[in-house]
Amino acid sequence: MSLSDEFKLIDGIKQTLGRPSSRVLLGIGDDAAVLKPPRGNLVVTVDTMIEGVHFDLGYMTPFELGYKALAVNLSDIAAMGAEPLYAVVSIGLKQEMNDYFVTELYQGISSLARKYGVDIVGGNTVQSPNTLLVDITLLGQCKDRAITRAGAKPGNLIAVTGDLGSSAAGLHCLKQLGRPAVESMPDLLTAHLKPEPQLKPSRALRKVGGVTALIDISDGLAREVHHLCERSGVGAFIDEKLLPAGEGLKRAAELAGGDPRAWVLYGGEDYQLLFTFPPRKQALLERALKRLKSRMTVVGKVLPKDEGIRIESLSGGTGPLLPRGWNHFARRARPRR
Amino acid sequence: MSLSDEFKLIDGIKQTLGRPSSRVLLGIGDDAAVLKPPRGNLVVTVDTMIEGVHFDLGYMTPFELGYKALAVNLSDIAAMGAEPLYAVVSIGLKQEMNDYFVTELYQGISSLARKYGVDIVGGNTVQSPNTLLVDITLLGQCKDRAITRAGAKPGNLIAVTGDLGSSAAGLHCLKQLGRPAVESMPDLLTAHLKPEPQLKPSRALRKVGGVTALIDISDGLAREVHHLCERSGVGAFIDEKLLPAGEGLKRAAELAGGDPRAWVLYGGEDYQLLFTFPPRKQALLERALKRLKSRMTVVGKVLPKDEGIRIESLSGGTGPLLPRGWNHFARRARPRR
Repeated sequence: MSLSDEFKLIDGIKQTLGRPSSRVLLGIGDDAAVLKPPRGNLVVTVDTMIEGVHFDLGYMTPFELGYKALAVNLSDIAAMGAEPLYAVVSIGLKQEMNDYFVTELYQGISSLARKYGVDIVGGNTVQSPNTLLVDITLLGQCKDRAITRAGAKPGNLIAVTGDLGSSAAGLHCLKQLGRPAVESMPDLLTAHLKPEPQLKPSRALRKVGGVTALIDISDGLAREVHHLCERSGVGAFIDEKLLPAGEGLKRAAELAGGDPRAWVLYGGEDYQLLFTFPPRKQALLERALKRLKSRMTVVGKVLPKDEGIRIESLSGGTGPLLPRGWNHFARRARPRR
Repeated sequence: MSLSDEFKLIDGIKQTLGRPSSRVLLGIGDDAAVLKPPRGNLVVTVDTMIEGVHFDLGYMTPFELGYKALAVNLSDIAAMGAEPLYAVVSIGLKQEMNDYFVTELYQGISSLARKYGVDIVGGNTVQSPNTLLVDITLLGQCKDRAITRAGAKPGNLIAVTGDLGSSAAGLHCLKQLGRPAVESMPDLLTAHLKPEPQLKPSRALRKVGGVTALIDISDGLAREVHHLCERSGVGAFIDEKLLPAGEGLKRAAELAGGDPRAWVLYGGEDYQLLFTFPPRKQALLERALKRLKSRMTVVGKVLPKDEGIRIESLSGGTGPLLPRGWNHFARRARPRR
């Protein structure tokens, strides 16, 4: 088996994707797509996934790769308090890949696109001799102002949705134990391979109002707290014992070694939301998320800038929260993807 | 020398790009960019350039790579009769690359972005261990209807802007003779490494009106005629002796071997426009392009579908115009990029 002719391949992709919605005036097949404009402002984000850096086909199916490539972009849209509309997908394929691989990958993209009402409106399928890659640009809309990283105020509380550390634990187990052994830990597997973008929680936060800053946790909690504080010009205090660790972390560490505390603080790829708000909004926000069967956990508070970014560790001591976590080029970064 | 920390690198990129225009409400540095919406409909295109497939750093500077990566996208926007607005840029960098390389690449992108009023609003800089890649998504606007590939009618004339074959000849010479030898053929060098996107001619065609179908020549004239005919449901007749060959083609063939006729018909990467219109519009269209110091050449006419897609060759015989040219995965394709 090998790849079809490029133009046959594109026909197959169109079949997998099905009919676009009526807001797509001209979809795949011309020099560019023509789309109804967003209501309000246009929101744009892009993410690239490179084989051997961001994923490994040794433990990930092409369906999951497609799913995750779109999920991480949807997470960025959620992190703006925006709504997704359109995606364009660039894929670089190695010679040995076959049409089945491409179809599965697009089915993964398509499954999530349908769930959140995203039209795949174009893309690019090219040869990439050494490295499989998937690059998705996602366009969304934001009726009024987006919720940026920049509005946190001293006195605000800091909260996160869902659990932390499960994705990093899942990746660690996949690498140490191989996929078959991790099938018995479905939470970790799902957290790493098929994360749920927090679009519905984001919508609920927006509806309640009062959220002053919002970011998604892709580079690890510690680094994202730094990103948010830098852009807002504030400091922060995080209480480690409040951090909502995923359920299977202890078991994962028993089976595969590794440090659950590091997974929670620095692991990254959680794709949960990290946000700040005045304390009087807490009960309303909690109730709104509960209604979605979602959950938020207050993990600290915003400080004036000159008080720094600090953490009270499990042992009770307080010190600086170091911005460890994923950084693409620094040697200090944990070489986890 | 090696790459900076990811976050320092992004700061450097922001400096290279300078301040965005006022329609960029939130640029690089948050989870997504927030932009004023297009006037009219939203137009989207994407192109990926992979080292060893679409370019070779042996004969191309990083500045030229950045320039060309944006140029090919601008060409797609021109091919819709649309106007460019915003670009997002994904770059996958190999470990041995340094900050100088990245700055030069962005200066190449930026030089063309400024010329055509495009804001670079975000992107992604990731590690790519084996392969340098640049992927640009370009967003534009189209006040009313776009000019698609689908409107050509029997009896319409077929024309192209500019010259054909120079880019393919330039690439051939770069591969056969090396860059220093090709510096004496600046037209071919520019055609291949720094093609001018035909946005102004596209605007002029649109203004005059009457253009029934429009496409840019990236995969070679022969294949693009097929694309246009397929989408329009028509046939075509091309007169080879009318095709406007670039000036240096003969000399290139003398110095480096190769077939000038193949460069013109199948070479591709011309990034000129191919378009159709009723004969009564010819003089008006010609005059409008002349005013821009641009030029169009009528090369054939649209036929009913059942008459096929034919060419009268230089020797006078008429036969089918074969859809040879660039195809990413077909073995039949000339392995030229």
